[in-house]
Amino acid sequence: MSQELFEEIAQVSSKVNSLMNRLVPPDKRPKPLYEASRHLLVAGGKRLRPFLVVESSRVFGNVPEAAYYVAAGIELLHSFTLVHDDIMDQDQLRRGVPTVHVVWGVPMAILAGDLLFAKVYEAVLLGCVEAGLSHGKALEVLNEITKAILEICEGQALDMMFEETESVSEEEYLVMVEKKTAALFKASARCGALVSDAAPEYVDAIGEFARYCGIAFQIVDDVLGVVADEKKLGKPVGSDLREGKRTMIVIKALEALSSEERAKLLKVLGNRSASQEEIKEVIDLLVSSGCVDYAKQVALSFLERAKQELLKLPPGRSRDRLLDLASFLVERAY
Amino acid sequence: MSQELFEEIAQVSSKVNSLMNRLVPPDKRPKPLYEASRHLLVAGGKRLRPFLVVESSRVFGNVPEAAYYVAAGIELLHSFTLVHDDIMDQDQLRRGVPTVHVVWGVPMAILAGDLLFAKVYEAVLLGCVEAGLSHGKALEVLNEITKAILEICEGQALDMMFEETESVSEEEYLVMVEKKTAALFKASARCGALVSDAAPEYVDAIGEFARYCGIAFQIVDDVLGVVADEKKLGKPVGSDLREGKRTMIVIKALEALSSEERAKLLKVLGNRSASQEEIKEVIDLLVSSGCVDYAKQVALSFLERAKQELLKLPPGRSRDRLLDLASFLVERAY
Repeated sequence: MSQELFEEIAQVSSKVNSLMNRLVPPDKRPKPLYEASRHLLVAGGKRLRPFLVVESSRVFGNVPEAAYYVAAGIELLHSFTLVHDDIMDQDQLRRGVPTVHVVWGVPMAILAGDLLFAKVYEAVLLGCVEAGLSHGKALEVLNEITKAILEICEGQALDMMFEETESVSEEEYLVMVEKKTAALFKASARCGALVSDAAPEYVDAIGEFARYCGIAFQIVDDVLGVVADEKKLGKPVGSDLREGKRTMIVIKALEALSSEERAKLLKVLGNRSASQEEIKEVIDLLVSSGCVDYAKQVALSFLERAKQELLKLPPGRSRDRLLDLASFLVERAY
Repeated sequence: MSQELFEEIAQVSSKVNSLMNRLVPPDKRPKPLYEASRHLLVAGGKRLRPFLVVESSRVFGNVPEAAYYVAAGIELLHSFTLVHDDIMDQDQLRRGVPTVHVVWGVPMAILAGDLLFAKVYEAVLLGCVEAGLSHGKALEVLNEITKAILEICEGQALDMMFEETESVSEEEYLVMVEKKTAALFKASARCGALVSDAAPEYVDAIGEFARYCGIAFQIVDDVLGVVADEKKLGKPVGSDLREGKRTMIVIKALEALSSEERAKLLKVLGNRSASQEEIKEVIDLLVSSGCVDYAKQVALSFLERAKQELLKLPPGRSRDRLLDLASFLVERAY
């Protein structure tokens, strides 16, 4: 990550964190509900989506204060999906800490997710009151956000259904990723552009840019879930395999491996009690067979498409930063 | 229920059901997600809250088309809370059918609740596009709805926490019920008044009316959970006892029973494997000791307060219907 990008993300994070801290305060009662809701917010996170909101606003001029409220809403939304997804996927670790349901139990975790969900809307509504977000803009933003949540639900449903599906095509995988991950990237960028009164064709272009970034990001995430070291990943390596997730890598592998190798993969895929050695062996196989590299290549191709969309936007410092961001999303895999 | 009230509820239900059917269509994919989301919507429900929205609008003149969109949003919201609450409370039956998580599993049920949650906002936003709901009104409505959801989350958290709490006071119970149940009644009435451009003092009065109705409704629900017949209730009698719910009846009983009787109650309270006979014996005890009657009396006192608030509103047919509704909510226990 370039120094400039790092600094700008830090600047956005600081404002967004303080807004989220006001919206989901540490001292509010019932205590377990608010503690559970704050758990992942304070555990870390790169704040990429809030940055995408603010920088997408900055491309079209100065950043109105309201952009930070929208950015906080988007991060709360991301965080709500993490809390609920971790329950659904039975994940035990996230951002290096135990997941919300592991600490507070499933019922309180469901509720914490619901609270964060409502806080998304509260953040944007507060933007009207405190930051002069116009009624019309607020409704446009809420519309983008609501559409994104619906897509995320559909994407997560597909992701879970794929775990039980024998054969998933690359095309089906991409539809799922577009909904599960890319829709929120797209909404982030579009909302940023909207609060800066960008022309509709610019809103569309920056939305497409972010959508391609989101797809690349998810594919890279799948790659990291296999090849990253556990400490950096904040969760166990290979958990996607244990959960039977149909990642780009797994889809390619099921197609390209020899029948003997495929049998090895199928033995751990969706097998929550697979041993560390079995997982390690399958990961080596996925790397040596070129399936991991293949996924990286696909991610790069989406990065290229994202860059093409950027060229449609007004040139300048913010457009350069968005380019940095896009490159960073994919470089994480190298 | 009076014939007039019955007919007016049926008329509102019909319009609201058809809107909900458009918002959560039966043929949409991923199929399991939409089927799970529709499950409780088609299983029944009295549609009291949509009626409250529409009738609260009618008190102040003609009902704008937008009121039905808001009413649909409120019912979707109610339905989202039922889906998630049933998971948290491990309830197996609702409206006479197996609960969503029993049919589709916990992960898909969480997701169905989330989808319905987002559909709440979609319903109101659609009211702007299709029914001329003004931007300002839409944001006021969304603000009421968002505040209500936050209260519901807090109320449900308290309800769950009370299950683990030795002694809960009547006052603490009422705070919980106000959040868990009455907040949505209040929001329904306020939203109805808002879309009809009612004066702020009327919005407040009708909101207070509905809030008192909501409290009475929940106390009556607690009573029915103990004394109703199972078929009418749509779920097993005594499940509140098994789950350890601190209802008004239980709170009174823990205070008023002899130590021997209290021991009997504590043996089944929160004991999911309590036998049918043990439950039956405790229910007889709750009735014979006058605790059930006590709760009915408290419900009646809230009904009285609700009626007082009604007197602040413009007189007429709609005010009379709201009075009918309030009486019906409490009469269910007789």
